[in-house]
Amino acid sequence: MSTTSTMIERIVAELLAQGQAAAAATPQGARDPALIPVGVSNRHIHLSRPDMDVLFGPGASLTRMKAMKQPGQYAAKETVTLRGPRGEIGKVRVLGPLRKDTQIEVSVADGFVLGIKPPMRMSGKLDGSAGITIVGPKGSVTKESGVIVAMRHIHMRPEDAQRLNVKNGETVDVLVDGPRGGVMHNVAVRSDEVSETEMHIDIEEANAFGLKNDALVRLRKL
Amino acid sequence: MSTTSTMIERIVAELLAQGQAAAAATPQGARDPALIPVGVSNRHIHLSRPDMDVLFGPGASLTRMKAMKQPGQYAAKETVTLRGPRGEIGKVRVLGPLRKDTQIEVSVADGFVLGIKPPMRMSGKLDGSAGITIVGPKGSVTKESGVIVAMRHIHMRPEDAQRLNVKNGETVDVLVDGPRGGVMHNVAVRSDEVSETEMHIDIEEANAFGLKNDALVRLRKL
Repeated sequence: MSTTSTMIERIVAELLAQGQAAAAATPQGARDPALIPVGVSNRHIHLSRPDMDVLFGPGASLTRMKAMKQPGQYAAKETVTLRGPRGEIGKVRVLGPLRKDTQIEVSVADGFVLGIKPPMRMSGKLDGSAGITIVGPKGSVTKESGVIVAMRHIHMRPEDAQRLNVKNGETVDVLVDGPRGGVMHNVAVRSDEVSETEMHIDIEEANAFGLKNDALVRLRKL
Repeated sequence: MSTTSTMIERIVAELLAQGQAAAAATPQGARDPALIPVGVSNRHIHLSRPDMDVLFGPGASLTRMKAMKQPGQYAAKETVTLRGPRGEIGKVRVLGPLRKDTQIEVSVADGFVLGIKPPMRMSGKLDGSAGITIVGPKGSVTKESGVIVAMRHIHMRPEDAQRLNVKNGETVDVLVDGPRGGVMHNVAVRSDEVSETEMHIDIEEANAFGLKNDALVRLRKL
């Protein structure tokens, strides 16, 4: 690397450090919108009405167990087993409410255990995603597609998006502190009227960066 | 962020892009020492002579199965079971040759399955590390310590370290391309006469960054 760019990088680092010191000095209560709490997702499944009927019986409904941070979303008491060509994974949590299409979100390691190669996708983008057999207490369903590795993303309150000057669908960097710290590139922002500000990552991403639920990471606009 | 630092960041990005273009233009065969191949480590164990004796029988020796990239190191045919307070993990590969002290390297997720909290450490730094029971075909050993989550690091040939102007024990950043790309901070350099250049990460780090064995990452000196 040239001496010029090294020097400039040092200047940038100093300016950034000054910015962080200034942020830390803001009065309590004036939350810095660039500091985003983390939500760590374990493998889970969203079910459609028809699949719910087969797996849990016609007209069965989900039992709310725990509210998620995103308004209206909850972890249900119900679980299913995922069965792939290589192996199976039990106790996979169903998240409610029901959705138009069944969607299964697993980690890269889960894909290996199951013997499938789910693509990395944003929620809802299921074209060409991996297939799987879902086993419930009343029946099982084999899906040709529906399994993805979720692309990390930030749900954001509209007022936070406005203060940070980022838009729905935009991509940002996220800075992580700590011994396994670093920078995550290509983090998508999802912002609509019902979003709570929260960054969703999976367990492998959390462990690789030394992050737990509610840890704070810093959004950096590109 | 101030307009000044934004401008400077843009200049830095342009200079870096120019540098990368220049690197890509070097003649074939002139390997760029900053491009480091990745080696992904699954959970494994290094055994001491006394523990080997208990687990596999007095005087038992390891059976070489596959050479590792680091000279003299190999995966053995032998495996053990790790048993923790919460659960156990079977088929844990023994790496040879034998060492002075038994050392067990697991992922954060493995620690959860076992019910232990191994600290993140460089190889050999076992003070205050987690305990575990190791089960072999001929006996079992309970260790008060020895389990760590390995800190990511780069083994480096002395001539590569010289060309990159980094020293043994120094910390660098590593840049990763791709949809799950980003930057890893706090990557330790380990360089001695018998090192082959290779970055060691665990499976969770590999999956979180979309990396596989022999993928190339880029070292950036701080």
